[in-house]
Amino acid sequence: MAPQLEPFFKQVDDLADAFIERLRKAVAIPSISAQDESRPNVIKMGKFLAAELKALGAEVELRELGKEIGREHLDLPPIVLARYGNDPNKKTILVYGHYDVQPALPEDGWATDPFTLTVDDKGRMFGRGATDDKGPVLGWLNAIEAHQKAGVDFPVNLLCCFEGMEEYGSNGLEELVMEEGKKFFKDADAVCISDNYWLGPDRPCLTYGLRGCNYYSLTVSGPAQDLHSGVFGGVVHEPMTDLVCLLSKLVDQQGKILIPGINEMVAPVTEDEKELYPPISYSIENLNESTGSKTHIFESKERTLMGRWRYPSLSIHGVEGAFSAPGAKTVIPAKVVGKFSIRTVPDMQSEEVTRCVKEFIDAEAKKLNTKNTIECTLQHDGKWWVASPKHWNFQAATRAVEQVFGCTPDMTREGGSIPITLTFEEATGKNVLLLPMGSSTDAAHSINEKLDKRNYIEGTKLLGAYLHYVADTKVDE
Amino acid sequence: MAPQLEPFFKQVDDLADAFIERLRKAVAIPSISAQDESRPNVIKMGKFLAAELKALGAEVELRELGKEIGREHLDLPPIVLARYGNDPNKKTILVYGHYDVQPALPEDGWATDPFTLTVDDKGRMFGRGATDDKGPVLGWLNAIEAHQKAGVDFPVNLLCCFEGMEEYGSNGLEELVMEEGKKFFKDADAVCISDNYWLGPDRPCLTYGLRGCNYYSLTVSGPAQDLHSGVFGGVVHEPMTDLVCLLSKLVDQQGKILIPGINEMVAPVTEDEKELYPPISYSIENLNESTGSKTHIFESKERTLMGRWRYPSLSIHGVEGAFSAPGAKTVIPAKVVGKFSIRTVPDMQSEEVTRCVKEFIDAEAKKLNTKNTIECTLQHDGKWWVASPKHWNFQAATRAVEQVFGCTPDMTREGGSIPITLTFEEATGKNVLLLPMGSSTDAAHSINEKLDKRNYIEGTKLLGAYLHYVADTKVDE
Repeated sequence: MAPQLEPFFKQVDDLADAFIERLRKAVAIPSISAQDESRPNVIKMGKFLAAELKALGAEVELRELGKEIGREHLDLPPIVLARYGNDPNKKTILVYGHYDVQPALPEDGWATDPFTLTVDDKGRMFGRGATDDKGPVLGWLNAIEAHQKAGVDFPVNLLCCFEGMEEYGSNGLEELVMEEGKKFFKDADAVCISDNYWLGPDRPCLTYGLRGCNYYSLTVSGPAQDLHSGVFGGVVHEPMTDLVCLLSKLVDQQGKILIPGINEMVAPVTEDEKELYPPISYSIENLNESTGSKTHIFESKERTLMGRWRYPSLSIHGVEGAFSAPGAKTVIPAKVVGKFSIRTVPDMQSEEVTRCVKEFIDAEAKKLNTKNTIECTLQHDGKWWVASPKHWNFQAATRAVEQVFGCTPDMTREGGSIPITLTFEEATGKNVLLLPMGSSTDAAHSINEKLDKRNYIEGTKLLGAYLHYVADTKVDE
Repeated sequence: MAPQLEPFFKQVDDLADAFIERLRKAVAIPSISAQDESRPNVIKMGKFLAAELKALGAEVELRELGKEIGREHLDLPPIVLARYGNDPNKKTILVYGHYDVQPALPEDGWATDPFTLTVDDKGRMFGRGATDDKGPVLGWLNAIEAHQKAGVDFPVNLLCCFEGMEEYGSNGLEELVMEEGKKFFKDADAVCISDNYWLGPDRPCLTYGLRGCNYYSLTVSGPAQDLHSGVFGGVVHEPMTDLVCLLSKLVDQQGKILIPGINEMVAPVTEDEKELYPPISYSIENLNESTGSKTHIFESKERTLMGRWRYPSLSIHGVEGAFSAPGAKTVIPAKVVGKFSIRTVPDMQSEEVTRCVKEFIDAEAKKLNTKNTIECTLQHDGKWWVASPKHWNFQAATRAVEQVFGCTPDMTREGGSIPITLTFEEATGKNVLLLPMGSSTDAAHSINEKLDKRNYIEGTKLLGAYLHYVADTKVDE
């Protein structure tokens, strides 16, 4: 039986202008976490959010995190912890978002002032943070307000965790989440994060997986200082010669990782999983549009999506210590560091991946017969995450999408990582759902970032409807 | 019959302090050609040299070259053209040197002020330009003065060509030399350039060859902009993957060039040539000292010197467009340019080398089965040069070294290039000799540049003695 959502939906439509006004106020605060001088604005934005939540009747706490690591002259912006509703007969949903934004300079090529929300005749609302992540965060507040004004009982208890450092490393967040897992977050029955994007421009998606990332440095060193290639070329082992040789052995042109043991760790595709791919609204043309080229490896949609989401990949990012400027320099670099990373997927274990990488590099280095020193080290790793798309949390979101948008959502993964997803899962032990509001065309992190009015307003309905279906869903876990 | 050199030698010793004073005055003029604000000092240095030459009785012309290409707000410093002596019964020797210097900042780590000649108790004379190339240039002036004061007839007619832009691309020099080949330089019987260094710290050398250099850019481009490796890793052909694969095929760890056709162009080692190597004062330890490592490829001195001088080499200098900073960045660079160069030797022809390189890259690129675009272009080339060390010009210098230093000079080549050498040969059609004054320990271009008093004073004797042996030598060409 579908919940009675019409009064709530109507109220959202009626309040649309007020919700856009709320977003306009939020965008006007340039809460750029990366820039020292903007820190007061980040804190101001946290306080704005707290005031709005309080006005809606939530209990709010600004959790201070002390000084920033690495920039100790700066206070970290507070994490906004809020609770709306405390009814033991209702489910409790924990939602996460962030209120800081990427830097934005008009001279980078913005068509409008990045901190003035500007709505064009196609309903595109331009402004830094519109889609990433102020729109989605305010979506939760809008949903509360619309329930109140429509006189509809809020279907769940809502816990909010909104941070102000997401665009600059989420300093302090992981520790707080782990610590509050059994405290402030202890009642949570499930988690919902709205901080990613639809796969395309039109159809909503639910995201149930993320790849991890193991990042490596491969250092080759020999001479004590850079040498002149005229004087020493031909008589010393050159670190760059060794490095390109080793890097060339890691992956082939078709994206196949050549390091023994890596592909063997990958979980096989199940029949259930296979069925998720054909309905997805995506094509090779979509891929080529987003890369601005025809450099796709695979011709099929399914294999391409699997390549992005559920198979590992290896990218070579660059070389530190070599000549990297335009022009010509006849140098033999003395010490070069190749950077490469492996995107990891179930069931790859980071330690095991690193063992395979190092063994392979060591074996290949021996074959080189060079007198240079070669060392491969793990710079950092982040684990992959995958949830069951059959969990009631995902089922509730699926029904909400069907109700609001009249279509089945794409079931997607992301090729990149959102580390906090895994932290919430570990800290609460509950299912985590990624429920995006924005679309693939929103240009998050880029110039002319925008959120479509449709995505914001229907998205607010989606968040509210999701909570109703959560309340309506029999918990079978 | 050896010329009577004793009165000249004695006079050089007597004038040693005056010669050091002359060098002190020259070093005090910071004639840095690379820096805009130093340009008046470069011009001042040219005028200083012209005045000294005039005072010695030379006919001097300051040849203006107009505006600098690329820095059109600057006048080029003049080329100092001078003639000392005009006796048709004497041979005429054309000498080249330069009066500009590399930049030098005390804060770079100089132990003394770079523009105050400072002589320590070991007779090391520290100062920018002491060895490169003010000492050698003044050596010619000193030789003239010592002949005059000793009352010894100057053995040849001397033509001087001293430029002020050598450290910044020799703007305007090549055109002037080519133009004056049959005019101001038309009487020249041979050319002598004193602007390089002994192979080691102790034994003088004569240099009869230089390698050339063909510098290539290998560009791989695909996506229209840099991509996120999480989102696109595994589904697009990555330019870096293609580039490292191609670069890895160019040269092996033992320095062997793998491009078909290149090694086949190299002139075989003759028996005459082979005999030049064993007497040379050099060892693998010397190589390892200068690289600060034990990265030598070959164990034998002869093979090492041949590797530096008479075999081609291929060095990979770096990659433009990829991630080159410290740290980690998960980027798929959209366009990367690998830089590599081949040091060329007789009988390699530049066009033929480029043809081999491009054919090979094209063939290997096809094998990659990539959709990226791959292009290899020649950035610049400079031809190798080799002279006959049996020419009377070299024989005269050999006898001068034996007379002044009591030993046979090392017969060397340089692995790097001094393009003007070839220009003088082509413009005059005469033999060119490189007759260095400084030693391998002089730190030209580096901090704490110096010239040893021994090298300066005995070097002045060497230049004078060389001219006497030139006069004394039967011309057999």
